[in-house]
Amino acid sequence: MIVALVGNHLGGHADERREEPGMSGLATPWRRACGGSVLLRFLDWNLRGAGQVLFQDNALSGLLFLVAIGWGAGALGVPEVALGGVLALVVATSAALWLRVDDAGLAAGLYGYNAFLLGIALPTFLAVSPLLWVFVVLGAAVSVIATLAVAEALKPLGIPAVTAPFVLVTLLLLLAAHAFSGVEAAAPTAVGFIEPIPPEAADPLRPLAFLEGLAHSLSQVFVKGYVPSAVLILVGLAVGSLRAAGFALAGALIALVVAHLMGAESQLVTAGLVGFNPLLTAVALGAVFGRPGVRTAVYAILAAVFTVLVQGAMVALITPFGVPTLTASFVLVTWLFLLARLDVSKRPGPAA
Amino acid sequence: MIVALVGNHLGGHADERREEPGMSGLATPWRRACGGSVLLRFLDWNLRGAGQVLFQDNALSGLLFLVAIGWGAGALGVPEVALGGVLALVVATSAALWLRVDDAGLAAGLYGYNAFLLGIALPTFLAVSPLLWVFVVLGAAVSVIATLAVAEALKPLGIPAVTAPFVLVTLLLLLAAHAFSGVEAAAPTAVGFIEPIPPEAADPLRPLAFLEGLAHSLSQVFVKGYVPSAVLILVGLAVGSLRAAGFALAGALIALVVAHLMGAESQLVTAGLVGFNPLLTAVALGAVFGRPGVRTAVYAILAAVFTVLVQGAMVALITPFGVPTLTASFVLVTWLFLLARLDVSKRPGPAA
Amino acid sequence: MIVALVGNHLGGHADERREEPGMSGLATPWRRACGGSVLLRFLDWNLRGAGQVLFQDNALSGLLFLVAIGWGAGALGVPEVALGGVLALVVATSAALWLRVDDAGLAAGLYGYNAFLLGIALPTFLAVSPLLWVFVVLGAAVSVIATLAVAEALKPLGIPAVTAPFVLVTLLLLLAAHAFSGVEAAAPTAVGFIEPIPPEAADPLRPLAFLEGLAHSLSQVFVKGYVPSAVLILVGLAVGSLRAAGFALAGALIALVVAHLMGAESQLVTAGLVGFNPLLTAVALGAVFGRPGVRTAVYAILAAVFTVLVQGAMVALITPFGVPTLTASFVLVTWLFLLARLDVSKRPGPAA
Repeated sequence: MIVALVGNHLGGHADERREEPGMSGLATPWRRACGGSVLLRFLDWNLRGAGQVLFQDNALSGLLFLVAIGWGAGALGVPEVALGGVLALVVATSAALWLRVDDAGLAAGLYGYNAFLLGIALPTFLAVSPLLWVFVVLGAAVSVIATLAVAEALKPLGIPAVTAPFVLVTLLLLLAAHAFSGVEAAAPTAVGFIEPIPPEAADPLRPLAFLEGLAHSLSQVFVKGYVPSAVLILVGLAVGSLRAAGFALAGALIALVVAHLMGAESQLVTAGLVGFNPLLTAVALGAVFGRPGVRTAVYAILAAVFTVLVQGAMVALITPFGVPTLTASFVLVTWLFLLARLDVSKRPGPAA
Repeated sequence: MIVALVGNHLGGHADERREEPGMSGLATPWRRACGGSVLLRFLDWNLRGAGQVLFQDNALSGLLFLVAIGWGAGALGVPEVALGGVLALVVATSAALWLRVDDAGLAAGLYGYNAFLLGIALPTFLAVSPLLWVFVVLGAAVSVIATLAVAEALKPLGIPAVTAPFVLVTLLLLLAAHAFSGVEAAAPTAVGFIEPIPPEAADPLRPLAFLEGLAHSLSQVFVKGYVPSAVLILVGLAVGSLRAAGFALAGALIALVVAHLMGAESQLVTAGLVGFNPLLTAVALGAVFGRPGVRTAVYAILAAVFTVLVQGAMVALITPFGVPTLTASFVLVTWLFLLARLDVSKRPGPAA
Repeated sequence: MIVALVGNHLGGHADERREEPGMSGLATPWRRACGGSVLLRFLDWNLRGAGQVLFQDNALSGLLFLVAIGWGAGALGVPEVALGGVLALVVATSAALWLRVDDAGLAAGLYGYNAFLLGIALPTFLAVSPLLWVFVVLGAAVSVIATLAVAEALKPLGIPAVTAPFVLVTLLLLLAAHAFSGVEAAAPTAVGFIEPIPPEAADPLRPLAFLEGLAHSLSQVFVKGYVPSAVLILVGLAVGSLRAAGFALAGALIALVVAHLMGAESQLVTAGLVGFNPLLTAVALGAVFGRPGVRTAVYAILAAVFTVLVQGAMVALITPFGVPTLTASFVLVTWLFLLARLDVSKRPGPAA
């Protein structure tokens, strides 16, 4: 069934145009192999879906992210988290085929990354049960519809959906879990999926705690804190775009410094829970949607600093309902700054 | 005054185009009578306003819905609910005339259904007092403005307002009631306007409880649970569109089964409080805004299932503020699925 | 630096077109002086920014508002409030220059009023600390970005941003304050920045309490209650537009009467906390965005009455999060009524 549907998408023109910086040695044979095999092509879309969580439209980045999550989930004793991610990814790509989405978006993994994050987040915040897997499958399918809907709603404004579909569908399902006895919240210790950090280790003045906060900010993008995973994620990011990797580190660094100066709780900072949203904002505004230059960098840094504050605001706004904030602050700040810049970029500078 | 305003709308062209399936025997003389009398015409608009709650643009469906509500309100000892609905309907149609809305929308009852629901909901959730009636009149007038505003805001997106103006204005007024000593909440037993269901009667495995849940899902669309009303509503729906009646039953059935399997509270399910939103979603996506076919049916069923979950989410999100969720989950899911489908329908299928 | 940037905007065409009713005697020499001096020009933009809080695009109104706030803040022993307003205004105008916003908007003060309100509100609701000033500076800069973003998002709908950027950024920062130990809420007695009103003085039937409520509704637009400030604000408003001053008084009057009749808490009404949002709605719909006439006046009055209710709703919705409602009810109602009217005004009346 899936194979038949995939066949319909084998025109293969949209793909040719995309370049994969820094990996052309590997990319060409992989692309040729995908052209010849329906299953490999389906695999390629799913891997790119994993890669798009950090805006990387290439299979190798996606593969490294997947390995990072699998390794982290195994090491922390929560294999259901990695399983949920893979299941949701496959369901979403299949649903996108059934819904006849556009070829280019499908081949770039744009219908996968929201489901992938949802598939990781649900088993992180809900206890394992048969109904959890129903939630993952249903949520993954709906995430494709939400991706189409949000993209359509934002079309008049000319801004991208980023991870809004993930935040919307996941929060709805987590809120819904309160109403049904068939699903239950995961044990509090598992929430946020952090290795417990003793207070003395979270001292912001200890270099090790600082480095740990930096690493966890990276791995918390995928809803968990595990240092080896962070290294793999950084490599996966650098494989796709060195500039993205640089802004990711800069965003996390800014978040750590700003949060400590403002008096955030050290344990949250060291666990990476304060850093992953500013990191995403910095990558999006500095490396993905902005032209290289000093003005773009200043703008991205301002946005990352503001994301630290908005993250605090989201905690005050969303956690009273018994659900996490996910990447809501990243979405809000990125939308604000992208919307504003449209106007600015239309206008030539004073010298021009 | 109203008569004079109505006169301005007696061009009578817009009306001719609409067909009224299954009731052409009655429709033609009624239309002729309306053409000759300003007051009958005003009555026709109001009846269609009642009919549009379930998307029916004909006076007979509206009349049957009105009788259903009057009967139910009388039987349950809350005549103020029926009175509020009629009062709001008349105020809204008059306000629409003063605001000089478009003829076609006015004649189709599109400026009435949100006010009608508001006029039923306010006396259900607020105690009777002089200020309650001020709220009903003011809310009905503002609901017309909200209908125009929401329609205008959604125009770039190409999706309909459905019952969003009702949800918006009613929730604002119910929230406002907390701030003024002149209005008070209705007694808790009256909230939701349900006949008390003893726990043993709500057992999902008893066929009678199941049938009751099905019926109440229909009558709760009009904010109450009363079986004879449900039958009248179903007849009113079938008179306008057999397909709509079919999807209504299917939506309610799906909601009951899904909610029970997920472990929802049996009493809520049997009282129809879990079913009326999925019912509305199924009718909207399956019978009103979708072309007939298997794909549309699958899509509508997926949406109805998701509405059961979103309804649970809305309870967790909205009830902490001391107000009901009304049809918020239907609005959200219908918008998401309609927005997404725009994209899909634009693209020809693989075979085309 | 600022001087150099200002120089780039010295084309001076956009300014010529605007008329300043009722002050042409003073306006011409002032305009000439601004044309010759970069610093005066920068001052002019800032003063107009203060004036735009009440939609007045002239420097004299802005100056009178500034004096009103300075006087009130001094008299009530909270100079930080006036200081915050001025600081935010200057930062925002500088940020707007760096962001290369459009000349006309900059010269009309449209990038200043949201920051000005934010600069007054933050020191009202947060205790003085080094971090408070960081919040003011950062918030002022971000308010310019939010102003651009909201304007861009509303462009397809054809409605203005009004004070939405102020509400958005200020609420985010006040919510964020909960997450950081470096900022703390101001003492409860200072919140709302009201002179304590003894219950007997707040009796709505005492003419003095009624007049006080009227005056405080004016001064609460700038987040405080002080009668001499109210007089200055009214003068500043009348200097710019007698019609705006009339609708301001009418809006406040309506709010007082409606709130008392509905049973609002007398102390809140007398303190002006119920009146400033309806006042803003009345000015916006009656004097700024509507053509003069009876229909516009009726529409503005209906909107002002509804704003009293929506203000009550916002208190129930927003205060549980430990933050004030600011001008959220004014923004919501004004948007609804402007969106709706677009449709109405497009359609010629029945006689035309």
